[in-house]
Amino acid sequence: MRLRDTSEGEFLRAVRQTLGGAGGRVCLGIGDDAAVLDCPPGRSLVLTCDAAVEGRHFRREWFSHREIGERAVRCALSDLAAMGAEPVAVLLTLIVSPEEDEVAARAVVEGAAAASAEFGARLAGGETVGAQGPLVLDVAAAGLVRTGRELRRSGAQPGDVIAVSGTLGDAAAGLAALRAGLGGPEATAVIRRYKVPQPQVALGVLLAQCDGVHAAIDISDGLLMDAGHMAEQSGVGIELFADALPLSPACEAVARELGVQPSAWALGGGEDFELLVAISPLEFGRVHHRAKQDCALELLGIGQVTEGHGVRLTGPDGTDLASPAAGWDQFRSS
Amino acid sequence: MRLRDTSEGEFLRAVRQTLGGAGGRVCLGIGDDAAVLDCPPGRSLVLTCDAAVEGRHFRREWFSHREIGERAVRCALSDLAAMGAEPVAVLLTLIVSPEEDEVAARAVVEGAAAASAEFGARLAGGETVGAQGPLVLDVAAAGLVRTGRELRRSGAQPGDVIAVSGTLGDAAAGLAALRAGLGGPEATAVIRRYKVPQPQVALGVLLAQCDGVHAAIDISDGLLMDAGHMAEQSGVGIELFADALPLSPACEAVARELGVQPSAWALGGGEDFELLVAISPLEFGRVHHRAKQDCALELLGIGQVTEGHGVRLTGPDGTDLASPAAGWDQFRSS
Repeated sequence: MRLRDTSEGEFLRAVRQTLGGAGGRVCLGIGDDAAVLDCPPGRSLVLTCDAAVEGRHFRREWFSHREIGERAVRCALSDLAAMGAEPVAVLLTLIVSPEEDEVAARAVVEGAAAASAEFGARLAGGETVGAQGPLVLDVAAAGLVRTGRELRRSGAQPGDVIAVSGTLGDAAAGLAALRAGLGGPEATAVIRRYKVPQPQVALGVLLAQCDGVHAAIDISDGLLMDAGHMAEQSGVGIELFADALPLSPACEAVARELGVQPSAWALGGGEDFELLVAISPLEFGRVHHRAKQDCALELLGIGQVTEGHGVRLTGPDGTDLASPAAGWDQFRSS
Repeated sequence: MRLRDTSEGEFLRAVRQTLGGAGGRVCLGIGDDAAVLDCPPGRSLVLTCDAAVEGRHFRREWFSHREIGERAVRCALSDLAAMGAEPVAVLLTLIVSPEEDEVAARAVVEGAAAASAEFGARLAGGETVGAQGPLVLDVAAAGLVRTGRELRRSGAQPGDVIAVSGTLGDAAAGLAALRAGLGGPEATAVIRRYKVPQPQVALGVLLAQCDGVHAAIDISDGLLMDAGHMAEQSGVGIELFADALPLSPACEAVARELGVQPSAWALGGGEDFELLVAISPLEFGRVHHRAKQDCALELLGIGQVTEGHGVRLTGPDGTDLASPAAGWDQFRSS
C-alpha cells in the first residue's frame, strides 16, 4: 500500500504501536505536540540535528529502508558523542513521497527507533511530511552531560596530544567499493563501516569525565577539515603526522585494488565518525588506559597542537607535506 | 553569488557573525558539534520538530526568504506553546539547492533567528545541506516547563469547557486569498494571519500555571482534526457548537468574495495556530480572566467534553450537523 492510500493518522498509529511510549528520561513520547524530557540537577542538555538526503548522503540501491533510518540516527548520535553526552531522545522528521510504500516508510522509522535504543535513547517524536522530491530524514538528538563538562571544539592547547579513536578512511573506502561494485571480505568490511557507522558514545561519555581532555570533534567531514575546525575554534595550529595515520588492512587492500592512495581517504574522506581529541600530554597516558579498559578502544596519537593556526601535515623528518584532500563541503559536488 | 561558488565554512562563518553566540539558557550556541542548554532544577525539557517544505507548506512567490525562515520557526514554537513551555533554543536544518543565492539563503537563517528571538529563544545551531529538490526547513525547538505541569493532549475530562484562543479560519482564508490574487484590507488581514502565524507562547505558559487546565493542543491541522486528536488521546468525546465558531470579519468578508462558507475554513482549514484547551468548568472563569488580564486574549468557549468518543458538531438545538471538512492530511493532496 502506498502512503497516499493511507492517512497520516493511520501511519502514525502504526508507528506508535511499534515504538511504545515514554520510558527512561523520556516522560512523554510520540503522540503529543512535543516530547518531554527529564533533566536531573547538575546536568545540561545537549542538542543537535543532522540530515540525511537521498542522492546526497545515501542511495536507495545501497541501503534497505531500515538501514536508512538506522544510519541517520547513528550519524546524529555521533554529534552527541563528540560532546560527551549520553543520548536520551531522538526526533525524526521524515519527508517522503506519497507514492512511497507504507511498509517501507515504517521500516525507516523502525530503523531509527532501533538505532536510538542501541545507544540508550528513545525515538520520542517527529514529523512525517508527504512531498515529492528526495527522501529526507532529519534527526534531532538530545542528550545529557554533567554541567560544565561537555567536550567542546574550542579548548585545544599548544602541546596537547591529538588522538583519534580508530582507523580512518574506511567509510570513504566503503563508498568507493560500493561505487565500483567490489566484493570480497575487505570490501565487505569497509562497506559496513560506511553503511553502519559507530557513534563513539561510550568513549565520549568517558572523555567528558576525564581531566586533561581539552577538545573533541567527531570526524564527519574528513580529518583535515575537522582538525581545521578544532584549530580555528581553539585559536591554535594542529600538526598531523602523515606516517601515523591509522589505516585498516581492509582499507589498504581496497585502495590497492582501486589504485588509490588510502591516505587520501583517511585525510579527506569523512564519515568515519571517530572522535578526534586534544588531550594534555600529562594526562594522555591515563586517558589512553581508561579508554582501553572501559571502552576497549585504542586512542591513537596522530599529531600535536601547536602555536599558530591551521592544519599542517608533516613527514617523519618534520617537513610539511602537501595536503592531498580538502574534505567534504556541503555546497560542492562530491 | 550562488552557494556553489562559496563554501559551507564561509557560509556558516557569515551566519555566525550575524547571530552571535551563547546567551540566556543557551550555554553553547552555533559552531560546535551540538548546542548546550541549561536546564534549571524543577524544569523539564520540551522538544519538538516541525518541517516546512517548498510546494507543500509554502510557495516562494508568496514569501520573501526571510519570511520563509520566520514562518518555519513560528510554526515550531506553536508546538511548545501547546505544551506550556517557554522557548529556549531553536536548531535549523536547511536543505537548499547549491544554485540558491547566498544572500537569500542567509536571509532564511536571519528570519529564523529573528523569530526565535521574538519569543525569547536563540537560534543555537543546525545544519545546511546543499541538495537539489524543494527548499526544506526543519526546525527543532526546545523549551522549558515546570516539571509535571506540561499541557498534554490527553487530560480532557467529560464536562470540561472546550475553549479556543482566537478566531479560526483566517489562515485558510489568507491562503485562498493568495491563490485568488485578492487585494484590499480584509484580504491583507487574513493573508497576514497565514504568512505570520502567532504561536500563543505567553498564553501556553500561563495555562500551564493554572489549575483546571486539563488538555491543550495547537490548531495546526484544523479544528475538527485537532479536536479529534484531543478526544482520541483523552478517551472522551468532544462536542463543538457550530454557532460558536469564532470567525473574524475579515475572514467572513473574504469568504463572501470567494463564495465560500467561512465555517469550512474554521473547521478544516488549519494553520491558525490558536490553542484549543479543555478547562474544568469550575475554573473556566478564573482562567478566562487571567488570559485576558495577562495575555490580552479572550478564551472563547466553543464546545464541551462529553463521554464517548469522536468529535460532534451540533446546531443550536443540539442536533448533529454533518462535518463539512476533514482537515489537513500530510499524505493527501491539499
